[in-house]
Amino acid sequence: MRNFNYKNQTEIIFGKDTESKVGTEVKKYANKVLLHYGGGSIKFTGLYDKIVNSLKNENIEIVELGGVKPNPRVSLVREGIEICRKNNIDFILAVGGGSVIDSAKAIAAGVNYNGDVWDLFIGTDINHTCLKLATVLTIPAAGSETSSGCVITNEDGLYKRSTGHPTLRPIFSILNPELTYTLPKYQTSCGIADMIAHILERYFTNEKYVDLTDRLCEATLKTIMENALRLNNNPNDYNARAEIMLSGMVAHNDWLGIGRLGDWATHDIEHELSGIYDIAHGAGLSIIFPAWMKYVYKHDLNRFAQFANRVFDIDINLNNLEETALKGIEALENFFTKIELPTRLSHANINDDHIEEMSKKLVAHYDHVGNFVEIREKEALEIFKLAL
Amino acid sequence: MRNFNYKNQTEIIFGKDTESKVGTEVKKYANKVLLHYGGGSIKFTGLYDKIVNSLKNENIEIVELGGVKPNPRVSLVREGIEICRKNNIDFILAVGGGSVIDSAKAIAAGVNYNGDVWDLFIGTDINHTCLKLATVLTIPAAGSETSSGCVITNEDGLYKRSTGHPTLRPIFSILNPELTYTLPKYQTSCGIADMIAHILERYFTNEKYVDLTDRLCEATLKTIMENALRLNNNPNDYNARAEIMLSGMVAHNDWLGIGRLGDWATHDIEHELSGIYDIAHGAGLSIIFPAWMKYVYKHDLNRFAQFANRVFDIDINLNNLEETALKGIEALENFFTKIELPTRLSHANINDDHIEEMSKKLVAHYDHVGNFVEIREKEALEIFKLAL
Repeated sequence: MRNFNYKNQTEIIFGKDTESKVGTEVKKYANKVLLHYGGGSIKFTGLYDKIVNSLKNENIEIVELGGVKPNPRVSLVREGIEICRKNNIDFILAVGGGSVIDSAKAIAAGVNYNGDVWDLFIGTDINHTCLKLATVLTIPAAGSETSSGCVITNEDGLYKRSTGHPTLRPIFSILNPELTYTLPKYQTSCGIADMIAHILERYFTNEKYVDLTDRLCEATLKTIMENALRLNNNPNDYNARAEIMLSGMVAHNDWLGIGRLGDWATHDIEHELSGIYDIAHGAGLSIIFPAWMKYVYKHDLNRFAQFANRVFDIDINLNNLEETALKGIEALENFFTKIELPTRLSHANINDDHIEEMSKKLVAHYDHVGNFVEIREKEALEIFKLAL
Repeated sequence: MRNFNYKNQTEIIFGKDTESKVGTEVKKYANKVLLHYGGGSIKFTGLYDKIVNSLKNENIEIVELGGVKPNPRVSLVREGIEICRKNNIDFILAVGGGSVIDSAKAIAAGVNYNGDVWDLFIGTDINHTCLKLATVLTIPAAGSETSSGCVITNEDGLYKRSTGHPTLRPIFSILNPELTYTLPKYQTSCGIADMIAHILERYFTNEKYVDLTDRLCEATLKTIMENALRLNNNPNDYNARAEIMLSGMVAHNDWLGIGRLGDWATHDIEHELSGIYDIAHGAGLSIIFPAWMKYVYKHDLNRFAQFANRVFDIDINLNNLEETALKGIEALENFFTKIELPTRLSHANINDDHIEEMSKKLVAHYDHVGNFVEIREKEALEIFKLAL
């Protein structure tokens, strides 16, 4: 196990009807907020009205910025930064999924930065004060509700890059599983793939002697998969929605990653894919993760066999660990198929036109991506080919 | 799953040689500290000198209060409160195990309280500001290093009672597994029983649909037991010490308890035992937990069978769940025996002289203890008898 520091000050407010507390919670920190959200869905479901009323009941002044799109754009972030500066806002309330929260984090990081906010995504450290932010989560997926990171897309060249800072963890996050009933099946599934990927990125590590976090990862993966299949039958199953929502948070708040160095190549590779194609991040991950696994599994057959055995109850064939490892990867693909996600680029109508370009862009700013196995242009291209 | 709020602001600083950072960490919050510790062991091991030097390097003024005993006493707490008031100290550094940390928490809670600190352990809420505290942990057991609670014994009548408040979570806690090499085997084992009990108290709940936290509990229990047996063979196994230390923290920081109501009768019953007999808390738990399980298992055979199956890999006999449940309880007893802990009062040379008295005192301040099954005087007596 590695030495580590861990601190996560986000207050999690979880359960039925918790969004009605948003006004009183915000009031502890601010009298004026930037209310940040996405498209029309929160207006359609009535959540928007509920939030606005709760804020108004506490006499909180609201300045609005909607319009966040999946794979959130730096142009809207810049707009949010200007609004906060002009209106002296120092608290952002993000109502939505990971894209909205990440957009809010980028605004929070950018307001007190003198240069262009994109600098913070291509190497400039955050050494200044970020605005406070809080969230009402509507899509369990990105884990951004308690994480310190965010991912933004620059339309100029379609680069998708991440940054992070401890102070970008939300002050509080409200998680009501009922708010996820209205999610379309595809979006639910994409979220599930995202949280699974967050765990797998941590699980595939070269760190030895990480028993507890291995088992916590496996426990969370099993829970997610069991409950995802329950949602296949009944999308309004509160208990299954609650397990998925809680698991999505646990998958990325780093409880499962302490003391180990994760991989993260798959996320980086997927960011190239969704940067160019605007495919949902989760669907990109359900394609890229199995391909990455097929490319790297020989690097640590034991770990892949343990994954197959503990997550999918596949017997370990000690005379042929490779067989066990491959069965585990196949089981993961089968699971993604069961929740109707693509596992090949062709399933998403993507051909090989841009795979060289994406492989090149992947390492435009870095020597390599990935820690479990170092991935450069050549290796990325092989992974894309395995995904075709 | 229940609605819940969760926030834990303690910074965990984990790994080799991390105690050398204590001075720079304290300096972020204070220029003067109450250094609180137990007997001579930290002086014998050299830890005391390391801590004092690290603090002095940062010009931090030190006022000392040593002498905390296992089952820490309210009299020393009162002494600590006076010292803090007299010296205008608002930061406590606890170096030791759970007893030292709990004593420090009680001091932190008492300094700004106008009445006697014991009030806070028998029903008076903490509505005032507590002092800040931080810890350097030397015994993985109580989980007090990131928890919000503490347990103190009142010599006047030998009552052992607990209190808690979110602001009693330490600001930071330093956990270096190397510091636990010198723990005697018995103390290591007692700590292991304590952390197992913390998980079991949460595991045995009447809450339905708690899949994730069930699995996280099971994952942590398996990790603890595997690594405890490794320490049987080699007490200087860093990796096993690290897994145990991390698990002890996870067992009680409530990652495993969110969304469920735990039981806690066994802790309360054990507090009567160690209040009177001054037996180590962990040894009391390894006696009382199996007895409690034998008394209550019929209340939820499914849960006990799941425990047997998932923690001890015992096949579920669907035609006889009781058999499976009892095998699980037996396996837990066998584990305690393997790490050389008592599982009967007689193993600790305790007879039935005081079991009526302890059963009566247990509910002196409350209608009952326990949530999974309500335990009153009569039931407590039966549990003590099963433990003889």
